[in-house]
Amino acid sequence: MLTSSKARLSMRASLAPTSTIRELLALTDQPGMRSMAGGLPDPATFPVDALRAAAQRVLVEGSDAAHRALQYGPTDGVFDFRVAIAANQSLHGIAEMNPDELVVTTGSQQALDLLTRTMIDPGDDIAVDDPCYLGARQTFLAGGATLRGIPVDSCGLQTEVLAEMLATGYRPRLVYTVANFQNPSGATLSEQRRLALVALAEQYGFVIIEDDPYRSLSFTGELLSSLGSLNAEVVISIGSLSKVLSPGMRLGWLRAPMWIREAIVRAKQACDLHTSTLTQMIALQILELPGFIDSHITANRVRYATRSLALGSAIEARGYFAAMPKGGMFTWVQMPGVDTEVLLARSILEGVAFVPGAAFSVDQMWNDFARLSFATLDETNLVIAANILADVADTMR
Amino acid sequence: MLTSSKARLSMRASLAPTSTIRELLALTDQPGMRSMAGGLPDPATFPVDALRAAAQRVLVEGSDAAHRALQYGPTDGVFDFRVAIAANQSLHGIAEMNPDELVVTTGSQQALDLLTRTMIDPGDDIAVDDPCYLGARQTFLAGGATLRGIPVDSCGLQTEVLAEMLATGYRPRLVYTVANFQNPSGATLSEQRRLALVALAEQYGFVIIEDDPYRSLSFTGELLSSLGSLNAEVVISIGSLSKVLSPGMRLGWLRAPMWIREAIVRAKQACDLHTSTLTQMIALQILELPGFIDSHITANRVRYATRSLALGSAIEARGYFAAMPKGGMFTWVQMPGVDTEVLLARSILEGVAFVPGAAFSVDQMWNDFARLSFATLDETNLVIAANILADVADTMR
Repeated sequence: MLTSSKARLSMRASLAPTSTIRELLALTDQPGMRSMAGGLPDPATFPVDALRAAAQRVLVEGSDAAHRALQYGPTDGVFDFRVAIAANQSLHGIAEMNPDELVVTTGSQQALDLLTRTMIDPGDDIAVDDPCYLGARQTFLAGGATLRGIPVDSCGLQTEVLAEMLATGYRPRLVYTVANFQNPSGATLSEQRRLALVALAEQYGFVIIEDDPYRSLSFTGELLSSLGSLNAEVVISIGSLSKVLSPGMRLGWLRAPMWIREAIVRAKQACDLHTSTLTQMIALQILELPGFIDSHITANRVRYATRSLALGSAIEARGYFAAMPKGGMFTWVQMPGVDTEVLLARSILEGVAFVPGAAFSVDQMWNDFARLSFATLDETNLVIAANILADVADTMR
Repeated sequence: MLTSSKARLSMRASLAPTSTIRELLALTDQPGMRSMAGGLPDPATFPVDALRAAAQRVLVEGSDAAHRALQYGPTDGVFDFRVAIAANQSLHGIAEMNPDELVVTTGSQQALDLLTRTMIDPGDDIAVDDPCYLGARQTFLAGGATLRGIPVDSCGLQTEVLAEMLATGYRPRLVYTVANFQNPSGATLSEQRRLALVALAEQYGFVIIEDDPYRSLSFTGELLSSLGSLNAEVVISIGSLSKVLSPGMRLGWLRAPMWIREAIVRAKQACDLHTSTLTQMIALQILELPGFIDSHITANRVRYATRSLALGSAIEARGYFAAMPKGGMFTWVQMPGVDTEVLLARSILEGVAFVPGAAFSVDQMWNDFARLSFATLDETNLVIAANILADVADTMR
């Protein structure tokens, strides 16, 4: 038997909290549950036929494509795939992106992890959106970072608040934000604040992490300037094909200034040698189909825009506040006086699930907020779920 | 511009050394080079047609398989895939393996990284094979571990030496070994030493990491007891499909006692959420083909056995010592009096590459050793390369 004195986990293992969202998902993944809890794309948006055809073209006996797909590959990603990502400005908003600055990652989650490893020592400060994307918070905390939340309003991270903190001596190494259709608030950072944030980074010497997974889900197709396009020297841009093609392929990327990128590639060697070359080569085939990605993205936009409107309208018709996002997958709902953790416990009994606002808290309280995903259910079920939720909430006021 | 005082990498980023092997590979990946440096499987062994057919069966519009392949999946891996790995004893040597103890990883490299995160704090001791697999050494060092090398002879890690160290107070948290066809030495741990190692783990309370990537490449098909089959409570078993199907799919796994496994799954959430479900579902199709894996493995065995014999014989015919492995991809050659780093610099000029023994050193000197891979070149080219190498070495004695 193991002697308990020596057989133990590392200190840092204890820093890794379980993801609340994943535990919730486990509870709510029951037949008949109308779940607005997950951040899962609608599987109907997966281009299955195109992916099958792409796999066919890659997996040809004796071909160079098959060889590259199945053999060990470069740690920073298949070169042609990096070229295709860089050339497709709609994926990141940066004109003339240099593929040599890109690193392909095993989903954008790995990009967050690699940045934590290479930029953060235990105790280092990171300023983050508050409310904050759970996966980022989890990774930063697991790396021993000290987080400060910058409150998010309907125009995104409040750069005025950050500026005040900086003026009084706060010195974060990194500032993390989801500038487009933020998870969970749905907010989009205003153009004025984008300029202000980059100016602060230049003035105070921090690096901005721009996490942009929902970019392709702009309902109108309109997008503000990506932070990376404003000053690539102070911004690390993270993107993903999870909402463009499929999350199961685990294809993400980051673009970083070269002095950071080199350290990231070294760290990635130790993490997983490289991201699957098979999925990279399949995705490359899709990216090279003329017009396919753009028309696929457009179809998804319409689908999600319709659902967002249906859900938000149903909530507002019941007298609760719903932030109407301009894209993405989430509506942020405020129910004054209602503790949404209690609401969840009760609504699950009625077959409706969501994520309570408190799950996303850093320094702010979001106890009467709820994150509702409109990505998975259709309009009919979203309206039914919204009304059940409002019925339960009404009894709690 | 960034102010240099704050814009810097983390301390731990500086702990991550560049992989010598990868830098060498970059140098030797030229047309006409006879490279025995890499650890790349022969691409002719990739079952391209079977993989294409498998991808076809998975990627069917509207099917459950396509949904699971393309959607987000469980952090610990697709359940059916874990069941198929567990049930296939030839992959790990453990009868009645419990799929609930398995975690699917993004290649076995990620298993090493996850174990480092969850079991090692900076300064903790790990005892390792000496010479040691580069990827493991790199990951352990990046995690801040202190490594001690246990010398490897033709019967593997010298457990007598480890026993002496333990008796005089050495207390490693982990002992890492490649027991079958070790990289780089080709040595296989004897049955007696396997029993001794597990007994030491039980006595002193350390955990053994059994890294077993070459298991499927036993030339005769014979294998000694896996360490995990001797006492699963003190052994973490790591495996991979990289040498069975394809490294580009990045499919590995680890089996660990439950108290470790839970921490590993939490750590993996922060690393990459989960391994590609698309590659897991494709590999699952292959594993479920009756008899396919076993006959595929048998064909590979014959291929590599023939090459190993050709290379080893050619080296021995020139009066140098070649360890004749019983499987795997590597021959370990000793050239007394020859500094193999100098030999490499000279042999590259003659179009022959390999990895010098010093690259694998922990505490021992391996300056007159060379690791030659016989996996990539055919017999004719292996014999030519061996003779060129011997020609150059002869001039250095």
